[in-house]
Order: sequence, then structure tokens, then C-alpha cells
Amino acid sequence: MTKYLNIHPNLIKERKGATFDPYTLTCLLWDGDEVVKHKRNLVALLENDPNLQDENLSDFLSQEEKIDFAIKKTIYLFRKLGMNEKEYYMFLFQNFYPFQQLGFPLHFVMFTSTLKLLCSPEQANYWLPKASNLEILGCYAQTELGHGTFLKGLETTAVYDPLNEEFVLNTPTTTSMKWWSGQLGKVANYCIVIAQLYIMNKCYGIHPFILQIRSLEDHSFMPGVITGDVGPKMALNSIDNGFMKLDNVRIPRNQLLMKYDQVLKDGTYISGPNKKFMYATMMTVRCTIIMESAQNLAAACTIAVRYSVVRQQSEAEQGAGEQSVLNFQTQQYRLFSALSTTFALFFAWRSMNEACQQILTDASQGKTDQFLFLHSFLAGLKAQSTWLATKYIQTCRECCGGHGVSLASGLPLLESHTAVSCTYEGDNTVMILQTGKFLLKCSRDISQGKNLVGFVSYLNANYTTEHQDVDSNLHLPALLKLCQHRSKRLSVKFTPWKNSLKLLVK
Amino acid sequence: MTKYLNIHPNLIKERKGATFDPYTLTCLLWDGDEVVKHKRNLVALLENDPNLQDENLSDFLSQEEKIDFAIKKTIYLFRKLGMNEKEYYMFLFQNFYPFQQLGFPLHFVMFTSTLKLLCSPEQANYWLPKASNLEILGCYAQTELGHGTFLKGLETTAVYDPLNEEFVLNTPTTTSMKWWSGQLGKVANYCIVIAQLYIMNKCYGIHPFILQIRSLEDHSFMPGVITGDVGPKMALNSIDNGFMKLDNVRIPRNQLLMKYDQVLKDGTYISGPNKKFMYATMMTVRCTIIMESAQNLAAACTIAVRYSVVRQQSEAEQGAGEQSVLNFQTQQYRLFSALSTTFALFFAWRSMNEACQQILTDASQGKTDQFLFLHSFLAGLKAQSTWLATKYIQTCRECCGGHGVSLASGLPLLESHTAVSCTYEGDNTVMILQTGKFLLKCSRDISQGKNLVGFVSYLNANYTTEHQDVDSNLHLPALLKLCQHRSKRLSVKFTPWKNSLKLLVK
Repeated sequence: MTKYLNIHPNLIKERKGATFDPYTLTCLLWDGDEVVKHKRNLVALLENDPNLQDENLSDFLSQEEKIDFAIKKTIYLFRKLGMNEKEYYMFLFQNFYPFQQLGFPLHFVMFTSTLKLLCSPEQANYWLPKASNLEILGCYAQTELGHGTFLKGLETTAVYDPLNEEFVLNTPTTTSMKWWSGQLGKVANYCIVIAQLYIMNKCYGIHPFILQIRSLEDHSFMPGVITGDVGPKMALNSIDNGFMKLDNVRIPRNQLLMKYDQVLKDGTYISGPNKKFMYATMMTVRCTIIMESAQNLAAACTIAVRYSVVRQQSEAEQGAGEQSVLNFQTQQYRLFSALSTTFALFFAWRSMNEACQQILTDASQGKTDQFLFLHSFLAGLKAQSTWLATKYIQTCRECCGGHGVSLASGLPLLESHTAVSCTYEGDNTVMILQTGKFLLKCSRDISQGKNLVGFVSYLNANYTTEHQDVDSNLHLPALLKLCQHRSKRLSVKFTPWKNSLKLLVK
Repeated sequence: MTKYLNIHPNLIKERKGATFDPYTLTCLLWDGDEVVKHKRNLVALLENDPNLQDENLSDFLSQEEKIDFAIKKTIYLFRKLGMNEKEYYMFLFQNFYPFQQLGFPLHFVMFTSTLKLLCSPEQANYWLPKASNLEILGCYAQTELGHGTFLKGLETTAVYDPLNEEFVLNTPTTTSMKWWSGQLGKVANYCIVIAQLYIMNKCYGIHPFILQIRSLEDHSFMPGVITGDVGPKMALNSIDNGFMKLDNVRIPRNQLLMKYDQVLKDGTYISGPNKKFMYATMMTVRCTIIMESAQNLAAACTIAVRYSVVRQQSEAEQGAGEQSVLNFQTQQYRLFSALSTTFALFFAWRSMNEACQQILTDASQGKTDQFLFLHSFLAGLKAQSTWLATKYIQTCRECCGGHGVSLASGLPLLESHTAVSCTYEGDNTVMILQTGKFLLKCSRDISQGKNLVGFVSYLNANYTTEHQDVDSNLHLPALLKLCQHRSKRLSVKFTPWKNSLKLLVK
């Protein structure tokens, strides 16, 4: 990394003034020295391997060039360097994203993970090796032009034809076209399609199907399938978010993913147990978004704080010479608020991620009592983390003045990338209302004499104001108690509003 | 406009329910029926003249194509349609901007207006016709790579050479390169350069010079001049914001703009009176930004409210069918807050614009007592309007869910365009501190027994809380009084902080 050796003297001076060891903090954040070293090896790999270098700065590439290069790099990482999926994730999300475009992330995040979750054992044996070897490239098509949040409203149909033992898939209206799915536009040759299942004119609700959309030989469309790119967006332009029309596309019966619900040859529908677990992918994705928010805000803070050390502007006293803008109180107030939020989000993710792993493991073994809690808190934290990160990345960008406006600063990309995460994977307004709804349910349970268990058991207690002065509250247990007190008070206060809230959430 | 005739039935229904006449409101906003009709004629012109049609949607054009087409259109409007400058402004700012790229706006907004303000009568006779006829295309180069807010810190030098009666211009360091100037990168052949004036080794501070940067024959650089584009930005990518290096560029003595300060042949420096008026361009530009904020937010509200009527999502009761998302309280709360802010900003601009015209007219006749007020309030309102508009355009975009993320919605362009206006023409944080500083000065004046006149005379009064209940305060005079009361109370409260604030503003 010799290319970075030319460090501005102001930065060296400020770094010497640190009252803690930055590497110790890094290890605390990332769970130990070993993980950090592994991460840094991966960074060195990307920076030093000529096959992984962009020929041009990506801000100057077209969408096609970005996608093309991203795919080449990803194939190289898997095939030539033998990287496995977990390493790739770490590489993708924890180091370079969104600055380095990497190929078909949705293949891993949505397609493969959904297959793992929803395939019957035979289906898993057949599909998973193909997906893991990148023999097939998949995406996940759920949202439609006219339908997002309200899943029951999806219009795509899968009608069972018992004579041929096939499902016939259609997008019968303009609004039913699949829309937004990442990699559906150009890259994927397979996709998981969410469609309303019909058997003998009866609708059984939405179900997941696996569908080949393009030839593995020449990438031409399969009969009855048309897809395309949805056009330029405010972010994620290296991903080919796409639309798809289906016109009487036939797939064999065993391409309904049948871990939970099954359709037998004769059209008999068997509803499986424990279906809540179907939402596990959604939850892990939301948990990842919390980490991404923290990461993106961390990157923005790093850029803006370093810039504020190097940038000299204005004199404290006439003739005293210009000074680092970080010396100004307004700059400190704005940047340090952003910085402290980064740490808050990061540790919130750490703790939520641990809970998520535990609860999903329990749920896979049938113990689902904390599932509603997990869903509700992930929803709220997804919303809060993306909103906070967006707000403070914007602050960081504004703190860099004109240079923050240049794409070269990296800040506009971080900002737009984080801003759109307020919308995807669950609209933030809908998300926080789900958390609110859950808290009101908790509050009602308590008022009916129930004792809450698990993560919300703090709501059982009655809180009183212990300390009236600021200083006595400035330690972690007191601050935690204040937050719990506030949560309790608000959930009790808003309980009479439950009906109104229910209407909003619907 | 037959192409828009296919209106969604939900929109027709909602419009029929209006309790006021929209055209009356439009006329109220834009100062009468005549202005509105003129505006609409201009709109029809752009929509119906084939020479003014984009061949491709501009979201798909490269920067070069955008600039190229914008210039063609502007030349057409001036040369073929005989549009004058005022009509062009209305066309540019009040109807299509930022959706329609139009050519060299900075030529009018910064170059010509600065010439009008700072040329001596002889200079005006020479330069203004060339600028107005578009014989020369100009820009305004003030900000440098290393210097923005703190004008005294600018490093570009103009050294007077009495022997040849010329100024020698240099950008002696990397940080002194001119940076960000709109149209400096590729389009302009002239520019106004702000540089430190040196005569016989003595520095007289920053002064404005007019400089030819490119040949009028073949657009090649003039000797010693190098310019280029600063690269992709988060907004304004149809404008070639540029950098410029100057290496011993010589210009005749009479290319110092000499309405106020003059340098005689022998190098004698004559400092002119009434120099505050030099800042009039800056003020009118900030006033225009307030209008642009209101306009952009209005456009965003229109898009988001219409979308929310057409978009159907979720059922109020199971089986009731999906409903317009505008029916949801959360959607209403967010959109109507944005909508009311639009009107607040619009009328704030109307009133500020009137004050601005009056005070600048007075100032041009030597009456400058309200100048500091104007500067201070324009600064604060520029900051508040751009921040509020950015925040609520973001809200509008989020209210459109995934479709708001698509550039096709128009919302990302409005958002990024408004977001960067928080930075250009005066960083918002610096701006609000200038308003604060002025209010504290007013407060100190009052405490010293002075009686304030003009727009801040409301601070002379002592306010008491007249109405304790909400209803009695819900009429305009009471609300105005509450705002005045609050302003008075805060300025008194923060007066002891003056020194700290002064440090911040510096």
C-alpha cells in the first residue's frame, strides 16, 4: 500500500494526539484480531492483484461497463482464487461496498439463501450445487410494478395443470409485471418468482417457484419470458434491476419450492407447519442492512473527519493564518454527532445480529416464541439505522463543502446508496409502525396481567426517575434505564391509539 | 398538450373534490393572470416546437450530449425566437429547471450581471453588448481548490506592471487553481476572475478582472490558460464546472472592472465609495435560490401527491380492495407537511424578493442602511429554504417508494439538485450563523437603548404571552406575534454567547 504513504502533516499530528489505540478499537468492533487480520488480507488482495483493478475510475463507467467488470471480478474471486461464499460476503459488504462493484450480489443474498430456506431436501440436492458453483445465476422476483408492501395484492399467477403436472405462470396485467428485482434485467438466467397459486380455480395465496428465464447456451429468453432493465436510478446503477413479463410459461410441478407447502401430482394441496421460518431470509437481509448503515456512515465519517483536518479555512485572529476546519465548533458538533451515531449503530447491529442468529437457530428447531419480537425489532432498527445513517452521511457531505459534492469524495455515492435503503427491503415508515404495533401489543399484554419474557421483559418493570441531575445519569446502566423508562412510558401512553395505528400499519 | 389527456380516474375524482379554484391559487402565487398566461405560453412553446425537443430522455444522455443540446436550445431561443434575457430567466428558472437542461445559465446569472454591476461606464459600453448578444460567453471564477468561504484567503494574484500597463495573472500554487466555476470547464471563452491585486509589492485585496480564456475562432486556450472539467458530481452534471490554471497571463489595465476601485496608468490605486453594492449579485442569486427551493419542492409535492392518488396499496378491511396510498394517515402527515412548507417558502421568497429589489434600488442611490439586514436575512433564508426543501423533497421521494428511486420519477434529480444548493453560494452553516450574528447585534443595540428601524423593528417591542390556548393562536396576526416573540426571546437569550458565535462565524 505504498501508494498511500504521502500523508498530510496535519493528519500525522492529529493521529499522534489520539488517547486510545485505534487498532484495539478496530478489533473490538470486528470481534478480534484474527478477523481484522483476515479482513486486511482481503483488502490487500483487492488492492494488489492486477486482475481486480478497475481500468477506469468507476464514476466514469457506463452501467454496462460496471456490470461487466463486476462479473469478471467476481468470477475471478471464486474460480481463480477459490474464495468461498462466506469470504465473498465479508469482502463484499464489510470492505469495499458500495465503492467496488462486485458481481451478482443478489444471487447470494436472495437467490441461494431462499433456495436453502425453502427447498425440500430433494430440491436442495438438485439446485443448491448448481447455484453454489455458479452454474446458474439467480435472482428473486417478488415486487411488481403495482405491488410492493402489500404481498397479498401480488397479481402474478401460477395455475396448476394436473394433466401435464405443470404450473402455468402469467403476469396477466401491466401492474403485475415483476419490477425492481436486482439482476433480473440482464444478468440472471434463473429466478425465484413469487406468485399466487391457483389449483382448480381456488387461490392458495403466494408461493415461491423457481423458473429458468434465459438459455444457459446463448442467454436468449426462454419461451414466454421477457425481461429488461428498469432504467437509471439514484443509486445501485451497477445492478441491473429489471422487469419481467410472463406469458403462459410452463414449469414442472417440482419447481414449486416445497419445504413447507406442497402440491401433489393430482393437485392436492398440503399446507406445511412452521411457516414463519419462510421469513428468515427477509430478517437476515434486514439485519445486514443495519450493518451496512453503520459501515457506510463510518466510511463517510472517516472521509469527512480526515478532510476537515486537511482543509484549511479562515483565521481565528486576523493574520494568524488559516486553520483546519475541524477546529470550528460547528464542524465538531456536526461531525462528532455523526461519529457517535456510527458507534451506536454498529453496536446495535452486533447485538441484534447475535439475537438474530440465536432466534433463527431456535426457530429452525421449532421454537418460535421470540420470532415476533425479532421481526418487530429488526423492522424498527432497519428503519432507524437507514434514516440516521442517511441523515448523518448528508451531514458529513455538507461538512466537506463543494468537494463533498464531487463524486471523487465518495460521499454522494454513500449518501444515495444509504438513502435508497430507507425504501428497499421494507419501506421505513411501514417498518417503524410494525415495531410500534408490537410494543403496543406488549403494553396491552402487561395491562392484562401477563408477564413478558425475553428481550422485551424490561417493559414489565415500573420505572421511576432516580436521578434528577445530569451527571448521575452519565453512565451506561443509568442511560439504559432511561431508555427503558422512556420506551415503557411511550408504549403505555400510546396504547389507547392502538386502533388508529393498526389502520396505519395495514 | 393532447399527450396528457389520458388522466387516471382517481385523479379526476380527487380534483373534483377541491374546495378552491386551482387557477386562482396559481395566479396568487405568480402575481396575476397575465404572468401565468405568459408562463403557460412559454411552456407550450417548449413542448410544441420540434427544435426544442430532446431526442432522448436526458437521463440517458452523457454530460457532453446534455451540454451540447442545452447550448443548441438556448441559441435557438435567443436567435430564432428572439427571446430576451428576462423571458429566458423565467423560462429557465420558473418552468423547467432542473428537468430541461438549458445552455450557459451562469453567463447570465453571474457573468453578465457582474459586468452590469462592476464595470465603469466605458467598460459597460464595451463589454455589455458583446455579452448580451452572446458574442462572448462568460463565467465567474472566484472559488479555488483550497478556498471558498474565506475570500481573503484567495491566492490567485494580479500584479500590476506599470511599464506595459498590464496586469499579470497567476495561480501560483495547486490550492490556488480556480475550481468549481460553472461553464469554466468547456463552454466559456471569457471569465471574470477574482484575484489579489498587487501594485509595487503591496496587496490591495481581491478585485474582479475580465479575462479571455479561449479563442473566439477555434475555442483553443489563450496563452498561459488551462481549464478543464472537475468531473462527475452528485448534481448539475449538465454544467461543465471547471478548474483553471493561469501562468503569467497578461491583460490590459482596463480589464480590471473599475466601477468602484481603479488603478491608474502609473499604478496609483483609487479606492471607490459605496463598495457594499459589489455584493448585490450575490444577494440576488441567494434570493433566486429561495425561489428555486420553493419551486423544486412544489414540483416534488405535485409528483408525490399525484402518485399517492394513483398508487393503490393495501386494504382497509380484508376484501375491501386496495386503496390510494394517500388515504393513509402517515402518507398524509408526510406529504401535507411538505406541501405546506412549499407555500411557506414561496411566500417568504415573494416578500424577501420585494425587500431585495427595494433595498438594492435604495443602495444604488447611496442609501445603504438596510443593506446589512438584507445580507443577514437572505443568508439565513437561503440556508433554511434549501435545507427544508431538501428534507421534504426526500420525504416526497420516500412517499413514492421504489418508484421514487427511479430517475423517471423526477424526484432524485430534484433532491440532489436542491441538496447541493445547501453548499453552493454560501455554505448553509456559515449562512445561518451570519443571521444569528446580526440578530445578536440587534439585541445588543436594543440593550444599549437604540431603537431598531426597518424589518427588525419588531425586536424593539416587549412581548407577553397573550393566549394560553391553542385556538386563540390559530390566526395569522397571533402566529406572527408568536414568531416575533420567539425571535426576540432567543436573541436576548443568546446575547451572552456573542463571542463564541463570533468565533464560529469567522
